[in-house]
Amino acid sequence: MQLNQLGIVKRNIVRADRAATEQLGRFGSATVHEAMGRVGLLQPYMRPIFAGLPVSGTAVTVLLHPGDNWMMHVVAEQIQPGDIVVAAITAECSDGYFGDLLATSFMARGAKALVIDAGVRDTRELTEMGFPVWSKAISAKGTIKATLGSVNVPVVCAGALVNPGDVIVADNDGVVVVPAAIAPAVAEAAAKREALEADKRAQLAAGVLGLDMYNMREPLAKAGLKYID
Amino acid sequence: MQLNQLGIVKRNIVRADRAATEQLGRFGSATVHEAMGRVGLLQPYMRPIFAGLPVSGTAVTVLLHPGDNWMMHVVAEQIQPGDIVVAAITAECSDGYFGDLLATSFMARGAKALVIDAGVRDTRELTEMGFPVWSKAISAKGTIKATLGSVNVPVVCAGALVNPGDVIVADNDGVVVVPAAIAPAVAEAAAKREALEADKRAQLAAGVLGLDMYNMREPLAKAGLKYID
Amino acid sequence: MQLNQLGIVKRNIVRADRAATEQLGRFGSATVHEAMGRVGLLQPYMRPIFAGLPVSGTAVTVLLHPGDNWMMHVVAEQIQPGDIVVAAITAECSDGYFGDLLATSFMARGAKALVIDAGVRDTRELTEMGFPVWSKAISAKGTIKATLGSVNVPVVCAGALVNPGDVIVADNDGVVVVPAAIAPAVAEAAAKREALEADKRAQLAAGVLGLDMYNMREPLAKAGLKYID
Amino acid sequence: MQLNQLGIVKRNIVRADRAATEQLGRFGSATVHEAMGRVGLLQPYMRPIFAGLPVSGTAVTVLLHPGDNWMMHVVAEQIQPGDIVVAAITAECSDGYFGDLLATSFMARGAKALVIDAGVRDTRELTEMGFPVWSKAISAKGTIKATLGSVNVPVVCAGALVNPGDVIVADNDGVVVVPAAIAPAVAEAAAKREALEADKRAQLAAGVLGLDMYNMREPLAKAGLKYID
Amino acid sequence: MQLNQLGIVKRNIVRADRAATEQLGRFGSATVHEAMGRVGLLQPYMRPIFAGLPVSGTAVTVLLHPGDNWMMHVVAEQIQPGDIVVAAITAECSDGYFGDLLATSFMARGAKALVIDAGVRDTRELTEMGFPVWSKAISAKGTIKATLGSVNVPVVCAGALVNPGDVIVADNDGVVVVPAAIAPAVAEAAAKREALEADKRAQLAAGVLGLDMYNMREPLAKAGLKYID
Amino acid sequence: MQLNQLGIVKRNIVRADRAATEQLGRFGSATVHEAMGRVGLLQPYMRPIFAGLPVSGTAVTVLLHPGDNWMMHVVAEQIQPGDIVVAAITAECSDGYFGDLLATSFMARGAKALVIDAGVRDTRELTEMGFPVWSKAISAKGTIKATLGSVNVPVVCAGALVNPGDVIVADNDGVVVVPAAIAPAVAEAAAKREALEADKRAQLAAGVLGLDMYNMREPLAKAGLKYID
Repeated sequence: MQLNQLGIVKRNIVRADRAATEQLGRFGSATVHEAMGRVGLLQPYMRPIFAGLPVSGTAVTVLLHPGDNWMMHVVAEQIQPGDIVVAAITAECSDGYFGDLLATSFMARGAKALVIDAGVRDTRELTEMGFPVWSKAISAKGTIKATLGSVNVPVVCAGALVNPGDVIVADNDGVVVVPAAIAPAVAEAAAKREALEADKRAQLAAGVLGLDMYNMREPLAKAGLKYID
Repeated sequence: MQLNQLGIVKRNIVRADRAATEQLGRFGSATVHEAMGRVGLLQPYMRPIFAGLPVSGTAVTVLLHPGDNWMMHVVAEQIQPGDIVVAAITAECSDGYFGDLLATSFMARGAKALVIDAGVRDTRELTEMGFPVWSKAISAKGTIKATLGSVNVPVVCAGALVNPGDVIVADNDGVVVVPAAIAPAVAEAAAKREALEADKRAQLAAGVLGLDMYNMREPLAKAGLKYID
Repeated sequence: MQLNQLGIVKRNIVRADRAATEQLGRFGSATVHEAMGRVGLLQPYMRPIFAGLPVSGTAVTVLLHPGDNWMMHVVAEQIQPGDIVVAAITAECSDGYFGDLLATSFMARGAKALVIDAGVRDTRELTEMGFPVWSKAISAKGTIKATLGSVNVPVVCAGALVNPGDVIVADNDGVVVVPAAIAPAVAEAAAKREALEADKRAQLAAGVLGLDMYNMREPLAKAGLKYID
Repeated sequence: MQLNQLGIVKRNIVRADRAATEQLGRFGSATVHEAMGRVGLLQPYMRPIFAGLPVSGTAVTVLLHPGDNWMMHVVAEQIQPGDIVVAAITAECSDGYFGDLLATSFMARGAKALVIDAGVRDTRELTEMGFPVWSKAISAKGTIKATLGSVNVPVVCAGALVNPGDVIVADNDGVVVVPAAIAPAVAEAAAKREALEADKRAQLAAGVLGLDMYNMREPLAKAGLKYID
Repeated sequence: MQLNQLGIVKRNIVRADRAATEQLGRFGSATVHEAMGRVGLLQPYMRPIFAGLPVSGTAVTVLLHPGDNWMMHVVAEQIQPGDIVVAAITAECSDGYFGDLLATSFMARGAKALVIDAGVRDTRELTEMGFPVWSKAISAKGTIKATLGSVNVPVVCAGALVNPGDVIVADNDGVVVVPAAIAPAVAEAAAKREALEADKRAQLAAGVLGLDMYNMREPLAKAGLKYID
Repeated sequence: MQLNQLGIVKRNIVRADRAATEQLGRFGSATVHEAMGRVGLLQPYMRPIFAGLPVSGTAVTVLLHPGDNWMMHVVAEQIQPGDIVVAAITAECSDGYFGDLLATSFMARGAKALVIDAGVRDTRELTEMGFPVWSKAISAKGTIKATLGSVNVPVVCAGALVNPGDVIVADNDGVVVVPAAIAPAVAEAAAKREALEADKRAQLAAGVLGLDMYNMREPLAKAGLKYID
C-alpha cells in the first residue's frame, strides 16, 4: 500500500468541459469567485508577472519539493492544448522554478499559463514571449533536479485544493479554481451575474446610489444606523 | 451613552481649505510628509493599483468590518466633489471590498480616489476607468453586507489617524494625511521646500557634492568620520 | 583597536575587471547566479522600481543606520563611473533614504544604479530620470542626518555579503553579487551556459521534451517514478 | 503655528476614573473588547514577554523615532503610579528601546507596564523583575538618543488610537484601549457580560449545546443550513 | 445543482481506525510526517497555545468565514469523543474565534483539541482547562454569527487538505494530517522508524558520527566534497 | 579556479580566545552588541526554543541548501568542545533540519548550541536534553540528503556575516556575532559598560530620573523640547 502520492504520474485525467472553461475565462476571477459563493480563490499573494486579459484553462497539476524542479519536465509531457499548469510545493519556497526554456517547452505543448506557489525567473523574456504566469515570487535562484514529486494528483496550491482537470481562471485580480463537475453551472451563474451588471452600472453612473438601487436604507435603519449632523 | 462609534454616519464635516488641498497635491507625498516634520504617512504597504500623478482631496472616512463592505454604499452618499474616501477595517483583511460598480458610483459622486487598508478587485477595469486606488492588497474575493460600521468618524488607516475633512495626498511614493487645521501652513512650508530644490538640483547635476552644498564635512569630521586608503 | 567598522570611509578599493563586469551584465541575474553555482543572490524581496534591461557595475558600499541617510552623501564622493551603490542598514527599515536630488548627484558622479535594503522615494521622478533602483520598499518617509555609518566596508545587503569592488548584476529577476576575484571566470562560465541555451530553446520550441533532451527518463524511472492511467 | 506634534511634552493629562480602570483590568482584554463593540484592539502581533494576570492602567503616551529612545527618559518623569506607558514609533522598527535600566526607573515611578510597537531587550531580567511588557519584537539592538519625539500626545500604537489618560487593558490575549470618557460605561457593560457567562459555562459543561442555549437552530435553518448523511 | 459546499453539515463520517489513531499520537508529528514521505504537514505558523505531549484524534472539519464563528456551534454537535476539530477560514483572518465557553462545550462533547487557521482567545483559561489548541494567532477580537459555512466537508487548513475522519497528530513541532485510509500503514511505518532510532541514538551518544553510522563518506566524496586545511 | 565555496570542508580554523569567549557569554547579547557599537546582531526573528542563561561559544559554520541537511552530518565531525554550530541556508526555508538524533551527536562532540536560519524539530526532546537552539522556525518537516554545501566557510546567517571561529553570544534577547580578532577588546568594553550599570540601576531604583542622571535636560531644551500644561 502506498503511503503517499509522491512518485506518481497520472496520465489520463478528465478535463472540464471546454466550452464552460472558455466561457469562465471571459468573466474573470472576481465574477467567477462570486458566482461560486465566494470560495475557490487562491491566496491573494499570487500575482501575475504581467497584466493582461483573463486566462482560463484546465489544470494539470504538479507537486514539487523545495528547490527542486525535476517534475516540471515530467509535467510538460502531460500538457494538452488549453491546459494551465498548477504547481504546488511541499513547503514554502521562493526559488525560481521556471524560466524561458521551460516556457518554450510548455508553449510548444499548448499550455496557456502557469500558476505556481513559488518563484519564477526570466520574467522579462516570459513577458516578451507573452506566456502568463501567476506566482508567489520572482527569483533568479535556480533549482536542482533530485527528488520525485507527482503529476496530476490533487494539490493544495496557495491555500486552494486543485484537482487535475479543474478550471483555472486567472487575471490581475487573482486566481480561482472551479471544480470540473460544476464548471458549466458556475459559468451559467456567472453569466447571470454579469447580465445584471450592465444595467446597474448605468444607474450608478447616472448618480443613483447603491443605497437606493439595492434598497438598503430600510435594513440599515433596522440594524440601527444613525445619521447625525 | 454610546460605548463606541459603530453605526454612525456623520453628515456635516468640515473639509480642509480647497486651495491648500489642491496646492498640496502638486507637491506629492514625499515633500508634504517632509514639510510636516516626517509624520502622517500611512504604512508603506499601501500601494497604488496604477502609477500616475499625485492626487489630493479631502477625506471622507468609513470604518468597515472584515469581509463586509455594506458601509461602502453608505459612504457613497456622503461624497462631495473633490473628496477621497479613506476606508479602515476593524481587523486585518485582504478581501476585495471595492470594484468597478462601486467605482462608477464614487466617480459619479465626484470622488477623486479611494484609500483602503484592505483589498480591491476589478483592477483592470479601475485602471481603464482611471479611478486611482491605494490599497493593501488586490483580491478577487468579494464581501458580504451584514454588519454596521460608521462613516465620517476618526479612523486609523494603515497606521495613521485620519479625521474626516483632512487632506489626503497620494502618489507612487505613498499616502500622507494632513490635518485640516494645518493644511495651509503645510502647503506653505512645502512650497518653501520645493523652491529651494530647483537650485540644489542644478548644483548636484553640475557635480557639486552634497557634502559641500550642505556643509557636511565639518560635522562629519566632528562626529569622528575617518578616511582611510 | 577599533571595535567595529563604523565611521570609516575607504577611498581606494579594487574594482572588478571592467570587461568581465560588462559581460556579466549582458547575461542577467539568473544566468550569472546559475554560473556561480546558485549562490550570491540577494533576497527576492529586492525589486526594481521600474522594469528594464539588466544592469551591471562595480559595488561601492555604504552602511547606514535606520532612518538616517547621512552617509549617502559621503558615499556619493566615492562613486566612479560604472559603479553601483550598495546600501545596507544596521536594522530593518523601510524609510525612503533616496530621492531625486541624491539621484541627480549619483548620476553626475557616473553611478549606474542603487541597490538598497530599505526604501526609496520620488519613484516617479527616478523613473523619468532613468536611474534604476532595486529596493525593499517604496516610502515617502524621509530620514535624518545624525549618525555615522561607513563607506566601502564589507556589508550584508538583503542577506548577501557584498565587498567593495564586487560585481553587481541586477534585472527584473533580482540582484546577484559576484566576488571581484572570480568575475572573469563567472563571465566565462555564464557565456558557456548561454551558448548552450540557443540550441536547447530551438529543440524545445520544436516540441522535443526536456525529458528526452536531458535524458531524464532513465534516472526518473530509477528513482521510482510510476506512470498510471 | 506648529505643523506637527513633535517636540512637545504635555504635563497635565486627565486620567480615566481609577475605579473603572481597576475594574476593567479584572475582566481581561477579550471581555472588555467585546463590551466596547469589538473596537479598540491593538494588532495581535503585540505579545507579552511573559504570561500572567491581566494588567490595567492609565496611558501615558510617547512618540519615538526609529532607532531612537531619547524620549523614553522624558516620559519617565510624567509617569504617575498606576500608569501604563504606551510607546508608538513614527515608522516600523524592531530595535530594543527598553531594558532593565529603564524598567527600574519606570517601576520606581509607579508604572504598571509598557506597551511598545517596537522591540525590547533584557527580557530575562524584566521577567525576573516582574515588569510586564507587550511588544512587537524582542531585540538586543540598542538605540541612540538624537531626535525629539513627544510625550502625552495622541498616538497610533499597533493600529489603535491611544489618547493620554485612556485605559489600557492587557493580558495574554492582547491589548485593548478604552477611551477615558467611556471607561465606567464599558466596565459596567463588561460586568454584565461576565455575570451572564457563569451560567452559560455551567450549561455548556453539562453538555447543553450552544445551538440550543442560544436558540440558533431556527436562524440557521432559515439561512439555509442543510444536514446530510 | 449546488455550486459550492457552503451551508452543509455532514453528520455521518467515517473515522480513521481508533487504534491506529492512538498509536500515531505516541510517535509525534515529526516521526509521522517522515513515515508518510514528508507530506501532510500544516504550515509551521500553526503553533500550540501551550506546550505538552503529542495529541492525536480524528478530524471533524468546519469551514468558517472571516470574522464569523457561527459554525463553531454547529460543529460542536458533531463532535464525538476522540475527535479533533479542524477549522479552516475562507480568507486570511486572525480574529479570536474560540474561547473558554466554546472550549467548555467542546470538552463536554469529548473533543481532544482544536486546530484553527485563525486566532483564539481566553488563552490563559484554555491553558488552565488543559484544552490544547493549535492556531495561527492569539487575539482578543471576537467574531459575529451571521454567515453559513459548512461542517465535515473537505477543507484546506494552513495549506493542507483535511478530510473529515482523517487522523490529526499535533505537538510542539506542528500538526500533521494522515488520511484515514492509510492510518494503520503509516502507524506501522512510524513504529519501524522509531524502533531503529533507539540504537542510533545510543551510537551517536557514544560519539559515533552520522558520517560513519549512515555510511555517508563515500557518497559525499563521490559528490565532490573536498577537505582542506 | 573554483567559482564558489560549495563542496568544501575547512578543517583547521582559528577559534577566538577561549577566555574572552566565556567572558562575553556572561554579559549577554544586549551588552555585547552595545559594546561593539550596535553591529553584529542576527535578525530578531531568531528565537530560542527555550529560555535560559546566555550561551557563548566559537562558531563552526555550515552552509546548507533548502530542504537538505546532508552537511549537518559533515559539520558534526568538525565540532570541538565549546563550539556553537551556525547554519545558513542558500535560500529561505523553514524545514526542520535538526532533531534529537543530531542533537545527541552534537552534544557528544561538545557543541554548546545550534544557531540556524531555518527550522528545527523534536523541540520537546531538545528541551529535555537541555540543548539550546536559536532558529527561525519550528517545523516537523524533515529534509533530504542530496546536495553538497560547505563547512567552515564564511556564511551570512539571519543577515549577519559569521566567520568560522567568531564568538557567538546568544540568549533570550537574540544572537550576536563577535569577530574573533576583536573578542578580547569587546569583552573588555562590555565589562566596563556593565561595571557602570550597577550604580545607575541603584540611582534609578531610588527614583533619580535618567533625565538628570544622564544630564539630558539641557540638550533636550536645546533641541527644542517644550513642556506644556
